[in-house]
Amino acid sequence: MRKSLLFFGFLLLSVSFLKGQKVMGFTDASAAKQIDWEKQFDTYIKASDQDEWMKFLTSHPHHVGSPQGKANADYLANLFKQWGYETEIAQYFVLFPTPKTRVVELLGSKPFKAKLEEPALAADHTSNQKAEQLPTYNAYSADGDVTAELVFVNRGVPADYEELERMGIDVKGKIVIAKYGGSWRGIKPKVAAEHGAVGCIIYSDPGDDGYVAGDTYPEGGFRPKDGAQRGSVMDMPVYPGDPLTPDHGSTKDAQRLDRKDAITIMKIPVLPISYADALPLLQSLKGAVVPQSWKGGLPITYHVGPSVDKVHLKLAFNWDIKPLYDVIAKMPGSEFPDEWVIRGNHHDGWVNGAEDPTSGMVAELSEAKAIGELAKKGFKPKRTLVFCAWDGEEPSLLGSTEWVEDHQEELKRKAVAYINTDGNNRGFVGAEGSHTLEPFFNEIIGEVIDPQTGVTVKERRYAKAIADADRAGRTKLMGDKSLKLSALGAGSDYSPFLQHLGIASMNLGYGGEGEGGQYHSIYDSYDYFTRFIDPGFAYGVTLSKTAGRTMLRLADAEVIPMDFVSFYKTVNGYVSEVKALLENSRTETEQLNKLVKEKAFDLAKDPTKQYTTPVAKEEVPYMNFSNLENQLVQLQAASDEFQKLYPKATSLSTDKQKQLNAILYKAERSLLKADGLPRRPWYRHQIYAPGYYTGYGVKTLPGIREGIEERHWKETQENIDIVAKTLETYTQQVRAANELLK
Amino acid sequence: MRKSLLFFGFLLLSVSFLKGQKVMGFTDASAAKQIDWEKQFDTYIKASDQDEWMKFLTSHPHHVGSPQGKANADYLANLFKQWGYETEIAQYFVLFPTPKTRVVELLGSKPFKAKLEEPALAADHTSNQKAEQLPTYNAYSADGDVTAELVFVNRGVPADYEELERMGIDVKGKIVIAKYGGSWRGIKPKVAAEHGAVGCIIYSDPGDDGYVAGDTYPEGGFRPKDGAQRGSVMDMPVYPGDPLTPDHGSTKDAQRLDRKDAITIMKIPVLPISYADALPLLQSLKGAVVPQSWKGGLPITYHVGPSVDKVHLKLAFNWDIKPLYDVIAKMPGSEFPDEWVIRGNHHDGWVNGAEDPTSGMVAELSEAKAIGELAKKGFKPKRTLVFCAWDGEEPSLLGSTEWVEDHQEELKRKAVAYINTDGNNRGFVGAEGSHTLEPFFNEIIGEVIDPQTGVTVKERRYAKAIADADRAGRTKLMGDKSLKLSALGAGSDYSPFLQHLGIASMNLGYGGEGEGGQYHSIYDSYDYFTRFIDPGFAYGVTLSKTAGRTMLRLADAEVIPMDFVSFYKTVNGYVSEVKALLENSRTETEQLNKLVKEKAFDLAKDPTKQYTTPVAKEEVPYMNFSNLENQLVQLQAASDEFQKLYPKATSLSTDKQKQLNAILYKAERSLLKADGLPRRPWYRHQIYAPGYYTGYGVKTLPGIREGIEERHWKETQENIDIVAKTLETYTQQVRAANELLK
Repeated sequence: MRKSLLFFGFLLLSVSFLKGQKVMGFTDASAAKQIDWEKQFDTYIKASDQDEWMKFLTSHPHHVGSPQGKANADYLANLFKQWGYETEIAQYFVLFPTPKTRVVELLGSKPFKAKLEEPALAADHTSNQKAEQLPTYNAYSADGDVTAELVFVNRGVPADYEELERMGIDVKGKIVIAKYGGSWRGIKPKVAAEHGAVGCIIYSDPGDDGYVAGDTYPEGGFRPKDGAQRGSVMDMPVYPGDPLTPDHGSTKDAQRLDRKDAITIMKIPVLPISYADALPLLQSLKGAVVPQSWKGGLPITYHVGPSVDKVHLKLAFNWDIKPLYDVIAKMPGSEFPDEWVIRGNHHDGWVNGAEDPTSGMVAELSEAKAIGELAKKGFKPKRTLVFCAWDGEEPSLLGSTEWVEDHQEELKRKAVAYINTDGNNRGFVGAEGSHTLEPFFNEIIGEVIDPQTGVTVKERRYAKAIADADRAGRTKLMGDKSLKLSALGAGSDYSPFLQHLGIASMNLGYGGEGEGGQYHSIYDSYDYFTRFIDPGFAYGVTLSKTAGRTMLRLADAEVIPMDFVSFYKTVNGYVSEVKALLENSRTETEQLNKLVKEKAFDLAKDPTKQYTTPVAKEEVPYMNFSNLENQLVQLQAASDEFQKLYPKATSLSTDKQKQLNAILYKAERSLLKADGLPRRPWYRHQIYAPGYYTGYGVKTLPGIREGIEERHWKETQENIDIVAKTLETYTQQVRAANELLK
Repeated sequence: MRKSLLFFGFLLLSVSFLKGQKVMGFTDASAAKQIDWEKQFDTYIKASDQDEWMKFLTSHPHHVGSPQGKANADYLANLFKQWGYETEIAQYFVLFPTPKTRVVELLGSKPFKAKLEEPALAADHTSNQKAEQLPTYNAYSADGDVTAELVFVNRGVPADYEELERMGIDVKGKIVIAKYGGSWRGIKPKVAAEHGAVGCIIYSDPGDDGYVAGDTYPEGGFRPKDGAQRGSVMDMPVYPGDPLTPDHGSTKDAQRLDRKDAITIMKIPVLPISYADALPLLQSLKGAVVPQSWKGGLPITYHVGPSVDKVHLKLAFNWDIKPLYDVIAKMPGSEFPDEWVIRGNHHDGWVNGAEDPTSGMVAELSEAKAIGELAKKGFKPKRTLVFCAWDGEEPSLLGSTEWVEDHQEELKRKAVAYINTDGNNRGFVGAEGSHTLEPFFNEIIGEVIDPQTGVTVKERRYAKAIADADRAGRTKLMGDKSLKLSALGAGSDYSPFLQHLGIASMNLGYGGEGEGGQYHSIYDSYDYFTRFIDPGFAYGVTLSKTAGRTMLRLADAEVIPMDFVSFYKTVNGYVSEVKALLENSRTETEQLNKLVKEKAFDLAKDPTKQYTTPVAKEEVPYMNFSNLENQLVQLQAASDEFQKLYPKATSLSTDKQKQLNAILYKAERSLLKADGLPRRPWYRHQIYAPGYYTGYGVKTLPGIREGIEERHWKETQENIDIVAKTLETYTQQVRAANELLK
């Protein structure tokens, strides 16, 4: 049934292709050829390949510095070479701490020592490779040996500490225990340390990815009671990559900071634990019952603490410099060898890493193999294709960041775009990225067929969006089927490309239907993936077709398929958001101050409960947005004009096309500011950045938005004008493109 | 500290009283006297009395037909007599089933038999009175002996069955298990039976009132693992009271229906269980994981079922006619003995019943005692005060309904208003009722002092509302401190007064700060109440001061303190709501039908999961609201005029005042329709009714609202016109009042 649907859908599509389909950036003649190549491309994508590669790549734990990590790099390099790519292994030397000592224990009358162990399961054949597994830990935690009372801090984000303050709880000198989720994990110990905590424990609450979500592994896909989430707690919102070599590649002889001067290394000891280990700790907490929204899925009454009995947390690490191995495979462009279209996925995993990262890695391999096959048939990409397999992504984007920093001058000149994946799941197409690529990407997803339903992945994603809106009782404006790209924050290897160098980037993947709860545990294995995530690699194949088309079209288009209207509309939306944020902040501040003045909090409080009345806040000043708004008008005009002129672009002379393309792919560079964002110069992009206090979570117009959120009023105004200036420079690029087109 | 604040607040208030405070319905001279009486009244309200009375009344289980139930009636009657009231015990004979056999067991490979027992606790001295306790059961369940697969139906309301249908689950021939909450409990077996289920189990999920809410009894106040909620499952939204004697008093010789013809008796067997007993049953369920919002607080993955192993549910009851004892105590009015101001609270409990109902009963006793003391000092209420202590409220408002039905002609003539309480807690004043009484009641709560903070209970409630809005991030319009009355649905003894006879009613209580989780269990005891609900009876005293003033002012006002503008505004709001409901229904139907047509649900679904695509619904017709809207304009004009003229009322001649008062207190009668609501003639009020499918939850403009919700379009239009007609008659009353005032 499924197969026949697929076949039928494909036939329909083929017919429409033959009728002279338009492809963005291509002449009609070259579009027809391109579509023909893409049809051939699809025939080389094999689920069986992906299965075979995943079996090898996940056969043993393959973290940075592991034997299997090196073996995987060699395996990948050999595959690329075998398919005709110029392949090298780029080696960097990075600080990668691994644990020597891990102790969490509850002292006092009911002592308890945390197991800190994920047991082997008969149903999971790689789970017993204990000697090769990294134990559960948070990389770049501080060494430490602390004994203190415990306090529960919910997700451990700034708002939670405001709530604790109202409840009269101070974490100074305490160890905090936080639930995973709600922020990038590194935010939790960072904010805890800012509030004076001496240690941090992070646990996976079953309310998030355990039995509350669904049946636990191996019966179902969700996190079992002893499962724990490894992960980095480096302060990546300041800079990712090797903490010792910000802004330059950590080559063998690179200048390195002293470890004590590396500000991205966490200041306090921090350790992740399972919910089985967390239970006795949480049961030891006294004090008030937590607010409703803080409650998790354990069968207990959650209290904020502090605990009566103390907790002992002892951690020590090997602070070794380890080699890492990025695999870089190139197929030189036939016409524009110095224009690079780059594709990447990391190959290192925290343990066996099937979903994360191997499912994305094998999709990338399928693409590279298929293009190798096309090349044998005479296909010659106009631009250079660069396929990357990054090492050391898990600790903190080490492989990609060091390579990007090391090659930054070359990349600034040559990089057209960077297309990232980082694992894959089953379900609906998802994409984040530079908004100049939005119409281009919508064209692609309108052609890739969903393996389950036989309609395009764009159509299916739209059906899901409107069906979900209906179930949620929201009225969904129907008709606009286009996918709006989300903005890129942090969390994978696009970060150095986009946010440090201003290279237009995308991150792609399918998801929404798999059962996922083994993130960063020993159970993210081949057995798990093929049972609960993407059985038969149906969506691995679909991802290859999606990302492969993205690469092929970027590489082969006469004119790089970018659009400024999408970018303008998106940024215009962001500006409306930050203006509303400022207004809300003003209204909320006024309301708060009035409540404080009227003593409403004192009167409303339960006198039998500890409660600290909030104090009045500084009033929110009005800001001058006029420069920015005027600049948006300019950008809109220039973008509209470009959109009108764009159809002419494919008929420009080769020379003019080359000039135009250079403007297009470098346009994103002009969204950078050389000295970066406030307090974090590495992040130069003025439109997209990871949140300083959210981590993964993107902050668009970060200078303005975080200025408002953190109530730095002077800085907010400065950043409004910086963004206006940035958009002015950007608009000049669009105008220059328009001049060429006139 | 608390005491001094209280004293200080009181002094301030006394000063303002001395400066000539206005009291609604009183001349300035009589207002001053009234306030003086009220000050004396307050001095007779003693926490120590309430404590002593509660100790006696809760000393043994005191359900309908129990020895302690009779003893309590006698005790109450003696107190009232002792305080100078003309007191009688009104006896009725009602069908009150009690269990003979209760079995719930899971069959199959992992058999389990439910304990169905709340164990005695050392910390609760009445919990060991096993021989006198009613076991955990649902009154008016059917007898039955069924063995079937089990299905989890969330709260068991109609929307849950729609969701189940989408998941491809049919409950026909199955036993359902539902969580308490989300509706009145009787709705759950009713809807289950409508869908063909053969049995119903209702359990208390710890996510609602167990350990998720807070520490469990006896450490904290929330429901322990073996705690279960008794309660009636009679189909009260059809009619309350004795199922055998609708619309007339169940006197000894009353005509009775045959039990098989009593449509309010449940059609299938139904039993409440604890979460300890529910756990193995829920663990036996297979099938899909439940939707997110259905999940409870047990440490399991909730599945919808059906179970593989069958469940055996066997129930048999003694279907006895039992005597019940209402205590009715009167202090005849000195000027208008045939105008009755009625106060009530029930005295029967499911077991020892400390919070429910005794905490409200002892507040009422304090009021009656204090008024008795005032009478000794020469106080003579103008109108007759009637203090009632109802029996048999728990099974289904038996005592109040039978008395009201029995005295309906007299009550229609004489009843000015009915003021109900039904237990009390600690915290903030809450009130529901007839909106004509809203300004009057706001005047009162602006004078009663909160025992914890020393400000008025109105001020404190406002502070809580704005502080909560602030915490929830909502912008709260500040300044309007008045309490908007909620509408009365069902759930306590005001129902026959308001909804059957059209007597303006209110239900009062304090709450929001106590820890309550022993509702209808053996642990709702004196020990529990005095530790977790209202230690020291601070709010019991405050409730007496609040309800007492309400009684005293209604009894003594020259002109009954009613206002039609509040009523108009409220009804106008309801009309806007039902219009919006109809529009939303139209938009949602259009959207649903479009989604069905576009096959969005088919495309969005996960093909590996069972899912039934919804079908298109009949389109929502437009309705004619013009009669109703025109009538609202008339009502607004008449109400505005009345408000303007009202200050003159106290200077009318005694005769005219009497005529005016008769119009005022009978105005609510004209909101009735003689043949009642569709499918339930007993409920005659056209503005307020309990929801047919929600039970407790009120449906305002019930004929219209339920017509829309249940998609009876013809009936909706009919009811729009019925309400228009009703408001026309009502407006005529307001105009008649205006004529008297001109």
